[in-house]
Amino acid sequence: MDQFINRREAVVTEAIDGMLQLSGGKLKRLDGYPHIRVVVRADWDRSRVALVSGGGSGHEPAHAGFVGPGMLTAAVCGDVFASPSVDAVLAAILSVTGSAGCLLIVKNYTGDRLNFGLAAERARAFGHKVAMVIVDDDISLPDIAQARGVAGTLFVHKIAGAMAEEGAALDEIADAATRVIDRVASIGMSLDTCAVPGSPKDARIPEGKAELGLGIHGEAGIEQVAFSGAEPAVAMMVERLEPHLGDGAHVALLNNLGGATPLEMSVLAHELTRSAIGTRLSAIIGPAPIMTSLDMRGFSISVFPATEAELALLVAPTPLVAWPGVSPVGAIETLPLPGGLTPIRPGASAHPGHRALIEQSCALFIAAERDLNALDAHTGDGDTGSTLATAAHALEDALDNMPLADLTQLFRAIGMELSQAMGGSSGVLLAIFFTATGDACAKGEDPIDALQAGLRRVQEVGGANPGDRTMIDALAPALDALPQGVDAAARAAREGADATGSITRARAGRASYLAADKLSGHNDPGAEAVARLFEGLA
Amino acid sequence: MDQFINRREAVVTEAIDGMLQLSGGKLKRLDGYPHIRVVVRADWDRSRVALVSGGGSGHEPAHAGFVGPGMLTAAVCGDVFASPSVDAVLAAILSVTGSAGCLLIVKNYTGDRLNFGLAAERARAFGHKVAMVIVDDDISLPDIAQARGVAGTLFVHKIAGAMAEEGAALDEIADAATRVIDRVASIGMSLDTCAVPGSPKDARIPEGKAELGLGIHGEAGIEQVAFSGAEPAVAMMVERLEPHLGDGAHVALLNNLGGATPLEMSVLAHELTRSAIGTRLSAIIGPAPIMTSLDMRGFSISVFPATEAELALLVAPTPLVAWPGVSPVGAIETLPLPGGLTPIRPGASAHPGHRALIEQSCALFIAAERDLNALDAHTGDGDTGSTLATAAHALEDALDNMPLADLTQLFRAIGMELSQAMGGSSGVLLAIFFTATGDACAKGEDPIDALQAGLRRVQEVGGANPGDRTMIDALAPALDALPQGVDAAARAAREGADATGSITRARAGRASYLAADKLSGHNDPGAEAVARLFEGLA
Repeated sequence: MDQFINRREAVVTEAIDGMLQLSGGKLKRLDGYPHIRVVVRADWDRSRVALVSGGGSGHEPAHAGFVGPGMLTAAVCGDVFASPSVDAVLAAILSVTGSAGCLLIVKNYTGDRLNFGLAAERARAFGHKVAMVIVDDDISLPDIAQARGVAGTLFVHKIAGAMAEEGAALDEIADAATRVIDRVASIGMSLDTCAVPGSPKDARIPEGKAELGLGIHGEAGIEQVAFSGAEPAVAMMVERLEPHLGDGAHVALLNNLGGATPLEMSVLAHELTRSAIGTRLSAIIGPAPIMTSLDMRGFSISVFPATEAELALLVAPTPLVAWPGVSPVGAIETLPLPGGLTPIRPGASAHPGHRALIEQSCALFIAAERDLNALDAHTGDGDTGSTLATAAHALEDALDNMPLADLTQLFRAIGMELSQAMGGSSGVLLAIFFTATGDACAKGEDPIDALQAGLRRVQEVGGANPGDRTMIDALAPALDALPQGVDAAARAAREGADATGSITRARAGRASYLAADKLSGHNDPGAEAVARLFEGLA
Repeated sequence: MDQFINRREAVVTEAIDGMLQLSGGKLKRLDGYPHIRVVVRADWDRSRVALVSGGGSGHEPAHAGFVGPGMLTAAVCGDVFASPSVDAVLAAILSVTGSAGCLLIVKNYTGDRLNFGLAAERARAFGHKVAMVIVDDDISLPDIAQARGVAGTLFVHKIAGAMAEEGAALDEIADAATRVIDRVASIGMSLDTCAVPGSPKDARIPEGKAELGLGIHGEAGIEQVAFSGAEPAVAMMVERLEPHLGDGAHVALLNNLGGATPLEMSVLAHELTRSAIGTRLSAIIGPAPIMTSLDMRGFSISVFPATEAELALLVAPTPLVAWPGVSPVGAIETLPLPGGLTPIRPGASAHPGHRALIEQSCALFIAAERDLNALDAHTGDGDTGSTLATAAHALEDALDNMPLADLTQLFRAIGMELSQAMGGSSGVLLAIFFTATGDACAKGEDPIDALQAGLRRVQEVGGANPGDRTMIDALAPALDALPQGVDAAARAAREGADATGSITRARAGRASYLAADKLSGHNDPGAEAVARLFEGLA
């Protein structure tokens, strides 16, 4: 699979530069490319405790996306899935740390622990107060001493970040971070592996299987499980998480590992709320890509029993768009359907003239069925005649119940009848034509002007104009000529319909997909139908 | 490819429900499941012009994600990639429209035009003021009369939304929307097709190719082009867009079609700013998933020559997290690297006792090279002895330049030397040990306490404890015994080292990946090295 990058070696610096250019001056970077890739808050004055996090890249928006007011002070970005160097971490610490000190928030991977750890020692040798916390929220490997740090890290970023923003002391923040780490639990699941830039993809997960209990670096999950849908998947993860839950209400973090669609993530959110732990969740962060694993089609659930004080820190405002906020889990509120979806049929009324005109029109369409079908067979599926004949029969059958004496209501009723009897695009277009004609009558326009208004609306909605090889090529000239009488209208319609036979470039409707030689010499069946109608009425 | 859904038929309703549950009461839906899926602002009072948009699902966050203050009043959600029904659109209009009227914002696809169009007619028949605009921003098919509506639709949503929020009249808003539509241009590119729930994926794009000029429903792009990286890809799209640019500064919208990673999107943002039209772009919306095509690994660029008034509407605040905001394109600001990355070496000083101790230690490690390698070969790659011998040689060579008389500086200097000479995890861990020991000396602790402080830091950072089969199993008891003299320390170290031979469950370091039978009967080489050191010094 290709990727939207240039050279693999440059992907991280180019991505950081793209981000900085669009930060509105809110982010800067240290001048240490290519090896030192550190993103820093531009407004930082070292007056409070600095929070530095980071690790390998490929987890975006983590970590640079969380640099800003109320969250991180700086992010140290390694290569994709590789720890940043000691020098890079040290540069970050030295750049942002003032007398209040610095907290390093590190995910539990050996490289990160060691490089951040040594950088902390070096910074301390310069006299800086540096504390370090190590996040190990993954619960998928119960026997391992060194649980991995995954998306639960964001609880630490947000809570520590809000405290630092408020001016808390380093010890307080480090203690609070440690208390978060002690209580947060995460587990992930994926349907596919991720594609590391420049490396072949390891397609190890077969159809019908998912990997459960994975890290965020493409390493295999702890087990492959049968996958049969969102509900059992969430149930399986919730079963693992449940023993790790604390007391009281929890905040969950629903993290897109990169490749799940927003549609899937919303389905998963729904499943989480109705899962076995659903009633214990008071709020959910996300669903959103927060700590991704490149394009992995997977997600993770983290749970945390936030105290009231911690919840206040989680919901404290931050302007960062990558932070999805904390959404309380609520009931679904529905509004009643509005009246009017099943229109009240206006009362039937008699009008012999209108009735005769409609009956005559219907008879004309019914008579033309075979010819119109034959014409349509040249350019379509050969059913224009049958479609119109069916609609004509339905209209005839409905005449006894129609408001024949009231033109406004009559046109609307014809529109309603046609949309139900015909279906498809042509049914909708004719319904729009007659409904709009009725509306124009309601405004007091005379019938011919009203029909013109209906035609304009059809053109507007359907997007077809005269010359596009549609029924409009007959209908438009016919209506233009109608003030001069039905004979004139019939002549104009015929002329227009016949002209469609030489239009070899259809610009609307289904014929627009056909080559010129298929169209030449055959009238458009819709235009032909209109011509036959006016000729019959003349 | 499996997906995180349940039944295909339920995916849209379940996703909407997930969204509503996490909306914090800000969204409601009409009570018309399964056919009528309409998401409505909960705070809507019909006092202003209502904006209704929608279409097929699969484009999330569009359209339901953009329902809220300053954007849409309601979104009508069809099945995946299928237009919602006339009834669903009509229900939305009737639910939100008051005397100020309603604007329908429709993307130019036949089904949407017709169904929204007929719904508009029906709503007008109820006496509502309804206007409709059709967005046709795709420029990839230059000859087609019916250009598709794609991500540029968001310019209309945001500008019309901000106007409606301010209380503008329907005509003004519709006119403004039409002016936006006349000037916005979009084009998309993808490296892969999307996976429609329940349908097999059409893998028609080979490696090394991209599709240019695609819609948002998985339909094939207008052409397949050679793909050789982000820069030429953006250049190709920019070349098509350039003739459609207007006068003055433009706002671009950089849309993730679903499956591109945030890392790729940031690289593309960088490329867009340095493309042929880069200097004509004053701001960029995104990069973000805005109008997606399920999981398509692609993106689109939309450009719009916003007037000052339009720009003000684009940047007008909205609380919607799906709206990524408008980011001015700015220069990259860099901060100078902090001093201290290349530590100033403290001046050399003489101290015969310290020098002798170090020389003796080095000689012991050099002598033990072969034995330690042999031991390591049982459980690792057989280079522990060589690694330590190399470091010892380097330390010997550096002695003349070392601050031998100042213990604080000496420990730190040894740490620096080892981290450079040894590399790898063990080099970093020993560097942390000596640097932390030096820091403790600086605080006035005596050397033995300082060494204990160094050990604590190594345990904290490395995560290993006594009993985990590491060098700590010898070092910890040796330091504990050191106040009783070197002989006692040597005995304790030997006892600890020998005990590692019966630890068959390593819990840290590389040996933790090995089975018990590989470990039994062999001392940990790191612990053995520590024991030999103390025995030699005794």
